[in-house]
Amino acid sequence: MVVVMQERATDEQIQSVIAQLVGMGFDVHRSTGSLRTVIGAVGPTTGDPRLVEMLDGVKEVLRITEPYKLASRTFRPENTVITIGDVRIGGDEVIVMAGPCSAESEEQVEASAAAVRRAGAKILRGGAYKPRSSPYSFQGLGEDGLRLLRGAADRHNLKLVSEVMDISQLETILRYADILQVGARNMQNFTLLRELGRTRKPVLLKRGISATIEEWLLSAEYILAGGNADVMLCERGIRTFESYTRNTLDISAIPVVQKLSHLPVLVDPSHGTGRRDKVAPMARAAVAAGADGLLIEVHCDPDHALSDGAQSLFPSQFDRLMAELRIIAPAIGRSICLEPVARRGWGT
Amino acid sequence: MVVVMQERATDEQIQSVIAQLVGMGFDVHRSTGSLRTVIGAVGPTTGDPRLVEMLDGVKEVLRITEPYKLASRTFRPENTVITIGDVRIGGDEVIVMAGPCSAESEEQVEASAAAVRRAGAKILRGGAYKPRSSPYSFQGLGEDGLRLLRGAADRHNLKLVSEVMDISQLETILRYADILQVGARNMQNFTLLRELGRTRKPVLLKRGISATIEEWLLSAEYILAGGNADVMLCERGIRTFESYTRNTLDISAIPVVQKLSHLPVLVDPSHGTGRRDKVAPMARAAVAAGADGLLIEVHCDPDHALSDGAQSLFPSQFDRLMAELRIIAPAIGRSICLEPVARRGWGT
Amino acid sequence: MVVVMQERATDEQIQSVIAQLVGMGFDVHRSTGSLRTVIGAVGPTTGDPRLVEMLDGVKEVLRITEPYKLASRTFRPENTVITIGDVRIGGDEVIVMAGPCSAESEEQVEASAAAVRRAGAKILRGGAYKPRSSPYSFQGLGEDGLRLLRGAADRHNLKLVSEVMDISQLETILRYADILQVGARNMQNFTLLRELGRTRKPVLLKRGISATIEEWLLSAEYILAGGNADVMLCERGIRTFESYTRNTLDISAIPVVQKLSHLPVLVDPSHGTGRRDKVAPMARAAVAAGADGLLIEVHCDPDHALSDGAQSLFPSQFDRLMAELRIIAPAIGRSICLEPVARRGWGT
Amino acid sequence: MVVVMQERATDEQIQSVIAQLVGMGFDVHRSTGSLRTVIGAVGPTTGDPRLVEMLDGVKEVLRITEPYKLASRTFRPENTVITIGDVRIGGDEVIVMAGPCSAESEEQVEASAAAVRRAGAKILRGGAYKPRSSPYSFQGLGEDGLRLLRGAADRHNLKLVSEVMDISQLETILRYADILQVGARNMQNFTLLRELGRTRKPVLLKRGISATIEEWLLSAEYILAGGNADVMLCERGIRTFESYTRNTLDISAIPVVQKLSHLPVLVDPSHGTGRRDKVAPMARAAVAAGADGLLIEVHCDPDHALSDGAQSLFPSQFDRLMAELRIIAPAIGRSICLEPVARRGWGT
Repeated sequence: MVVVMQERATDEQIQSVIAQLVGMGFDVHRSTGSLRTVIGAVGPTTGDPRLVEMLDGVKEVLRITEPYKLASRTFRPENTVITIGDVRIGGDEVIVMAGPCSAESEEQVEASAAAVRRAGAKILRGGAYKPRSSPYSFQGLGEDGLRLLRGAADRHNLKLVSEVMDISQLETILRYADILQVGARNMQNFTLLRELGRTRKPVLLKRGISATIEEWLLSAEYILAGGNADVMLCERGIRTFESYTRNTLDISAIPVVQKLSHLPVLVDPSHGTGRRDKVAPMARAAVAAGADGLLIEVHCDPDHALSDGAQSLFPSQFDRLMAELRIIAPAIGRSICLEPVARRGWGT
Repeated sequence: MVVVMQERATDEQIQSVIAQLVGMGFDVHRSTGSLRTVIGAVGPTTGDPRLVEMLDGVKEVLRITEPYKLASRTFRPENTVITIGDVRIGGDEVIVMAGPCSAESEEQVEASAAAVRRAGAKILRGGAYKPRSSPYSFQGLGEDGLRLLRGAADRHNLKLVSEVMDISQLETILRYADILQVGARNMQNFTLLRELGRTRKPVLLKRGISATIEEWLLSAEYILAGGNADVMLCERGIRTFESYTRNTLDISAIPVVQKLSHLPVLVDPSHGTGRRDKVAPMARAAVAAGADGLLIEVHCDPDHALSDGAQSLFPSQFDRLMAELRIIAPAIGRSICLEPVARRGWGT
Repeated sequence: MVVVMQERATDEQIQSVIAQLVGMGFDVHRSTGSLRTVIGAVGPTTGDPRLVEMLDGVKEVLRITEPYKLASRTFRPENTVITIGDVRIGGDEVIVMAGPCSAESEEQVEASAAAVRRAGAKILRGGAYKPRSSPYSFQGLGEDGLRLLRGAADRHNLKLVSEVMDISQLETILRYADILQVGARNMQNFTLLRELGRTRKPVLLKRGISATIEEWLLSAEYILAGGNADVMLCERGIRTFESYTRNTLDISAIPVVQKLSHLPVLVDPSHGTGRRDKVAPMARAAVAAGADGLLIEVHCDPDHALSDGAQSLFPSQFDRLMAELRIIAPAIGRSICLEPVARRGWGT
Repeated sequence: MVVVMQERATDEQIQSVIAQLVGMGFDVHRSTGSLRTVIGAVGPTTGDPRLVEMLDGVKEVLRITEPYKLASRTFRPENTVITIGDVRIGGDEVIVMAGPCSAESEEQVEASAAAVRRAGAKILRGGAYKPRSSPYSFQGLGEDGLRLLRGAADRHNLKLVSEVMDISQLETILRYADILQVGARNMQNFTLLRELGRTRKPVLLKRGISATIEEWLLSAEYILAGGNADVMLCERGIRTFESYTRNTLDISAIPVVQKLSHLPVLVDPSHGTGRRDKVAPMARAAVAAGADGLLIEVHCDPDHALSDGAQSLFPSQFDRLMAELRIIAPAIGRSICLEPVARRGWGT
């Protein structure tokens, strides 16, 4: 941390600040300017800057950020690329994960998986355990849902991402999913994060609705510190005063995270806007801004979805969006699923 | 929900909206005005207003709030008073819970408990499991900490409140604490809330850092719906653009919650401001605004606290604050610990 | 407005609400459901919903938005296209306005204008009167600055947009600029807006840093109501808790405004991010999301700019960005300056 | 500013940062730690930290705040007390300013003034020019309104505070009011602030709805820098995600401002909550937190007020609030109008 003394601070006050910093285990450097004294404190821990802030003569304490290390680009300058079979997340190709909010029935899962695969998605998304803000809403099919999702993913040559809400579900989900999703509300469920650090499956960590980018990277650090290096981040909207959209999708988080960290960053425009008619513009914006991938809700029959139908695309809308994205990606030197199934002539 | 049609909506569009609403299970009422048509939809479920919002001719869908029932004052007009031995939370007396952020050692717990009891606190607060945003920070003493806290509480005739972070800790904490605290980051950990609904100990539910009051009451609903009626709410600051204080303590939440709900509402000015010198003004403000209680960090030696020392009061500051609060409480017809230990002549 | 009564509201309470609404000049429609009564109130004015909210038995009052009329797409379904000479804003072409934050000297203005024209910008941006949050910062060259900007614009076949901060500056700026810019801090300077409604020059209205989209459109309404139909909107970032970027650029405002209003909507990624390295990603995102134009700070020597150098692009960065945008625009059926000067071989 | 270099920064990068800082006019101090180098830069100007932030090898630039000087407590350690006749703002007595939102008629102004005087207010508040977000709302009586307010103030031995929206109104308002109010939307209308710096009447500067405390003090600095030392600040709610109350009244701003600045700080709970039933709790909270005064809307007939009736107190509610405040003020060593007119039996 850096301590800025008041203009009229006495030497005694300055000495007392230095003593406090040394007591906290810092290396201390004093710079005496014509106007004021600035004291730099660097050390193995971050310490609590507020303890110094309250000492007499202190004008301000500036905190050096980034208590995260493993998630930082300083620690690892080159991009992390996460490999799951033939799918590479964080490489040249923009990866699209798509599918229904929740698994509801065999037909629904099958139809949705077929549709997203046809359009070029590489990964099937779908929930079996649903975090719902009301105790009276649909809570998911549980393990039956996972079984349906895995079956459809396998039939259509898709990988599977699904959300884990609690460590008690972890063992079950590990048997079915290729990527473990941590929802926004669990971004600071540290018990869960620590447990995910012990698994060896990739984790998709959504940004909390009011999490700063620094807090988000610190949560990634929990997983990385446990020994699991395959963490991808997913922006899904932050809470602001604007209420027209459910949340405000923070597109600028994409280039910011890419500067600070080596981890891949995806965007979920479905939760980020909460409205079907805003998903395509924001998906295009995310790819144009440089996102490594997208997470999109697509449902074979959104009007009768048990959850989030209003933000799910119809398959035909998703087809059209994928075509638009294929035009945009080359502007930043990337591609999107250049060889979708339909073009390979598999008899379909 | 209430559907407002556009001025130029056709009758066909109106019929189509009505059909959708009926299909969603609503009772529908149509009001045709000179300017526009308004359709009221009331039913057993809330439905997803966004499904209607996207239909042609719809200008706007207004959502009727309060999917919570048990937490609502409509459901229960009189105040809930939670009784723990001789302590009553939600009654005429403003209850003060105080103590260190974390249990650190026997001496520290004992000295802090003695100090807060002497000043008039009725409940000892203290953490054994700490949620820390960095994986490299002090994480608490675990069960050893709980044992120290329980011992000190018993010696000083205090009740004990302590935080539960995960269902795996629940059984242990239940053996020691009188009140189970749910931290801000866990306000929407629905698995945990559901489990707390099955216990029979009072729960103190902190407001999430970016939770609306409606979401907060919905989380209380999860606990109430499980059969546990003893829920108290605790405001502890929301995240805003202002960064001088760690969070912005939303004092207005006190009268708002008291109008909407029958549950007691407390305030935590320590976490709400994050700075020792702002704790007393905000504690006074909370009582003046009508809070049913306070949760305050007091440490026998804040400068050497292992966590949150910067926001912990010295015992002498806490004494003075309690004296100020005793002047304020009568302004709203309440009292604060009329017979503190010190005045009883310590033989008790 | 729509009034939702409590479940246990008495008939007397309902009658009293209806009487209040009629007294406020509303047409009233009552819907009695099995659970609760809903009262629709439609009328010539919007009224103050809070007056009803406080009546006994009222659960909630839902406000029908859009007190704006002229700015609404209901009022005018087709897009507004603003024509300035051969430049059309709001048509098929995405219009780029670029140039320095402030006019500083003849050389600087000339070099910047030449650079942006060469890359394909159609409109020169540049300030002569600067709103600065500190009274000790550079405040602009005033009319001298305007003269320099006009000269450079004319020499390079560019239109000119410049900010007006106060009605006292209006007459002067009207003599030089083609478009009058209203800054974010003045979005609710109603005296100024009303005066701009009386001019016959196009107005670029920036969104206030904490303005909702509804408030923004209401401010446009002030100008439209005065008889000036040529209003374009410009998103430039909103204030949120995230402090890594100066503001959070709300890209989703683009499709939202385009649904609600017929007015063109532009984006300013320079002020929206405050950092040069984030301008290009956000400019690409804006075009991908459907923006009608961009406002970008380009300076011939950003490191020595008197204001906002840190968010100004170097000319070479701007060239590259324009090339990227030309790839993206067709994805949504638009173009960006298909025939830039340099390609026409005008001897340059 | 303080520049924190990356752990692996080269000496060449460090030299290049130092050269840039020297070129910007700073005194530079280099601290080389075992982990990283920290460079302190102190100088007469603040400079734009972002210019340094983008240099190679820079991890982070920490800005030293407080470009305000005259408003700072460092500059003037003792409290500013503003004297208007026998009224002292910023002294031991908490000053209450009360009255209707707008002057509407002679009867309304007279009745409201009589009521607030009787209860103990010292200053009459009332608007003649109203900033309204919709161009179709009541815009105030103008100079006629000022005349009514002045007359009532004189008859009841009250001072008068009224809002100035634009420099064109300044001359007129100066003839009637004792205190010039700057509304939240004008907090960064720098042209107006500079003009107010040239007057010799006290100014009440409301905090902008999304202004940080630092920006608020910088706006005060504009007025102080012009030579007008009588500036009082007024918190009136900030915009947050919570929408139950119109704004979130930031009570913690009171102790924060009192630490940073010597200027008096008042609170407006009427605009800060927007709801009559929340005014009294928040007024009590403000006094308990240490506010130097209150600005409260009181109307003789709120249900028929032309503006803001929903947040105006009935005279009887105001009486009761004043009685509660008289109990609270002594808790922090202050008083509130100990001898109200009515009790003195002046025959009036």
